[in-house]
Amino acid sequence: MTAPSLPLVPLPASVTLTDAAPYRPADPDDLHLTVTVDASTGGPESSSLQVTERGIRIMAADPAGAFYARQTLAQLETDGVYPAVEIQDAPRFRYRGVMLDVARHFQPVETVRAYIDHAASLKFNHLHLHLTDDQGWRIALDSRPELTEKASGTSALGDPGGYYAQADWTAILDHAASRHMTVVPEIDVPGHTHAVGVAYPGLVADPVISDHILETAEAFGGGIPTRGFPYTGFAVGFSSLKHDDPAVDAFLADVFGELAAITPGPYLHIGGDECLGTDPADYAAFVEKATAIVAAAGKIPVAWHEAGAVAGIHPSTVGQYWNFVQPQEGQDAPARAFATRGGLILSPADVAYLDMKFDALSPLGLVWAKGVTTLRDAYDWEPTAILDGVGEQQILGIEAPLWSETARDLGDLEQLAFPRIGAIAEIAWSPAAAHDWDSFAARIAGLVPRWRSAGIRIP
Amino acid sequence: MTAPSLPLVPLPASVTLTDAAPYRPADPDDLHLTVTVDASTGGPESSSLQVTERGIRIMAADPAGAFYARQTLAQLETDGVYPAVEIQDAPRFRYRGVMLDVARHFQPVETVRAYIDHAASLKFNHLHLHLTDDQGWRIALDSRPELTEKASGTSALGDPGGYYAQADWTAILDHAASRHMTVVPEIDVPGHTHAVGVAYPGLVADPVISDHILETAEAFGGGIPTRGFPYTGFAVGFSSLKHDDPAVDAFLADVFGELAAITPGPYLHIGGDECLGTDPADYAAFVEKATAIVAAAGKIPVAWHEAGAVAGIHPSTVGQYWNFVQPQEGQDAPARAFATRGGLILSPADVAYLDMKFDALSPLGLVWAKGVTTLRDAYDWEPTAILDGVGEQQILGIEAPLWSETARDLGDLEQLAFPRIGAIAEIAWSPAAAHDWDSFAARIAGLVPRWRSAGIRIP
Repeated sequence: MTAPSLPLVPLPASVTLTDAAPYRPADPDDLHLTVTVDASTGGPESSSLQVTERGIRIMAADPAGAFYARQTLAQLETDGVYPAVEIQDAPRFRYRGVMLDVARHFQPVETVRAYIDHAASLKFNHLHLHLTDDQGWRIALDSRPELTEKASGTSALGDPGGYYAQADWTAILDHAASRHMTVVPEIDVPGHTHAVGVAYPGLVADPVISDHILETAEAFGGGIPTRGFPYTGFAVGFSSLKHDDPAVDAFLADVFGELAAITPGPYLHIGGDECLGTDPADYAAFVEKATAIVAAAGKIPVAWHEAGAVAGIHPSTVGQYWNFVQPQEGQDAPARAFATRGGLILSPADVAYLDMKFDALSPLGLVWAKGVTTLRDAYDWEPTAILDGVGEQQILGIEAPLWSETARDLGDLEQLAFPRIGAIAEIAWSPAAAHDWDSFAARIAGLVPRWRSAGIRIP
Repeated sequence: MTAPSLPLVPLPASVTLTDAAPYRPADPDDLHLTVTVDASTGGPESSSLQVTERGIRIMAADPAGAFYARQTLAQLETDGVYPAVEIQDAPRFRYRGVMLDVARHFQPVETVRAYIDHAASLKFNHLHLHLTDDQGWRIALDSRPELTEKASGTSALGDPGGYYAQADWTAILDHAASRHMTVVPEIDVPGHTHAVGVAYPGLVADPVISDHILETAEAFGGGIPTRGFPYTGFAVGFSSLKHDDPAVDAFLADVFGELAAITPGPYLHIGGDECLGTDPADYAAFVEKATAIVAAAGKIPVAWHEAGAVAGIHPSTVGQYWNFVQPQEGQDAPARAFATRGGLILSPADVAYLDMKFDALSPLGLVWAKGVTTLRDAYDWEPTAILDGVGEQQILGIEAPLWSETARDLGDLEQLAFPRIGAIAEIAWSPAAAHDWDSFAARIAGLVPRWRSAGIRIP
């Protein structure tokens, strides 16, 4: 449907190239461009864009729609010339997210700002920040200053750490809002909490030392986790908050309560994944407690899909599915349970995790999901075909997480994310009927040189 | 796509009539019927149904899907013969509701049971019960026994009242569950609360006496509302809970807390409509407070669409839109605000309110929405075309309310509901692409004699 000469990613809902003469503005910084925002013209984030010889007209349903039409426009332009087109555009899914893990490797505000710009240019509208994990606590909370004072100094691989002071947090929120992105902060409980124990050794259980810990230490370094001391390895699932301890309840109330107060968006993510160090009954009690606190604090809880098995989870909770396009044994049932709660965000690790290796020889990235995840892997999947019982009506949206075991800085993040982030953008935004690998591959090929000249590092 | 000789309402997603011989069971009570439930076969509530000369096979994704396939099967049968068909079926929207107003005219448990059966046969899966209004309080709560002791004795038009004791409530919940329906109870606040003031005169403001009250009293009787005394008229918008009163806060906490504890489903409806007797700032504070209490009590709040204007409403709240297919001035913006919260249930009054007159000469029904609402009016609308910014991704589902100013008993409810309830069932269940008035009219015409012989009163 689209000439490959137009490098549009994600593909808009409808693109009509005309034979008319293109628009050649005399001054590239002074376009004949009219933008009208009128809610009666379509659904949320929708727009129409018309380029004629005489100039450009954007009609959008809301400011986000106008912003996305401008992103389309930027992709249309070549050497100062805009082809004559008529484009109708609207997103398939209302939640389109990217996630940065700033816990395993801390990323400064300017890196987060740059990643927001990258994601927004591809019409993503949510930035999920994984703010805490075994390797560090990354957000300053007035109620618990010890967390950043004592547990933010290091990152994975022994790299330096860091944290967002309140002014940093405000800067991130402001920049995200300016790009029509909603920030979704995550405090991961009850597992992934070794760093909590660096600040408060009394709140956590002793690490569960398994073969996985020993093998991971051998393969990647980082040592064996010890309660009260920073951990810089890659192992998962060994840490847990203590159960049935009033001091832990007070901790949960403090951190989720304060986080709710400083978060303008509707969602707070409570984690809940890979709690191998937590007894299942204790895990259920934690999930119930954490989602109840978040709901009572005026937010919609989000949790990784394992939490779906907990019958008493708050029914407004949104589930985030991280298992595979073909669910492994036992992973589908808890995820499906969100179909009748707040719905699902789909992030299948074998296609949507941007931290998977794109190339077997690169030192960047991990391989646990499917070895190498190619651009085609990232593109060729259909959200409604993954979980029985989870169709359009149950899917809130799509998210591309980027975990940072191996990603030290913006260059690493860019090399892992690009070009695969374009595939997830198209899955999240474009109509299912327009899905076509050959078309996508040609359009991405047209974008890569533009990304490179904008300074984005692409493998 | 479907031969009119098959009276299937709502139309399944795909129906293939074959030339093969039909199935003629020797004993109508002993079918050769195999039912398999296998989650891998499709989405929630989906099924396939195959009839051959040798018998019937149902393959369903879940027990609800098997139940709905049985409803299809019942519509297929004529004189003990089942035509040879292949049917694939799955719902368009996940929330498909009917509402009974048991406040203006109380309805006993057996009437609610019968209405559940009617609705479930048309593949509705939620029963919204409007349990409280100016005319009466209909559910016994241990925390507030005065509500039913003092404020449940009368109905509109001076008819007798009533209420559901806890055993009645359990009976309704059980019967609904047996028909795969989730009960959504509504306690309407801060307006529609004159009955609260009959039990607790100190909790409510004095009625706001307007021309509307006087005109309604003249047209329909029921007198002028007086604080502390039962009201049996049809007027709306005159009552309000008091603002900024700790006794009212305690009341809200008691009733929503206890209701949450005795309700198995995820939703609690807080009303919030037509609060003409409440100052707008006070109204906002009420909506914030009520939705926060419901969320903290472990439920997803639902509110009528006016509440969408309240910025501080709990973000998990689902909005129920009751204005028109062409929204009146100012009604669309608050409804649209739910697009980025819990989504919307659409109940446009001019097409989906089953209490509107079906016939200008009948004493049953009201006319305020569009005069007479015909079967064709009830059928010919598209949910995604009503509110800008509210498409498939924002619509949780569809609901057909039945307010009971003029409906005294099951016969009245049936005459108002049938056959229009079939139109709303099809809007909620069937694919948009299958929408066709001629086909629908023929199929409904095939069902009407069956409904009549089942004892349903149809005009």
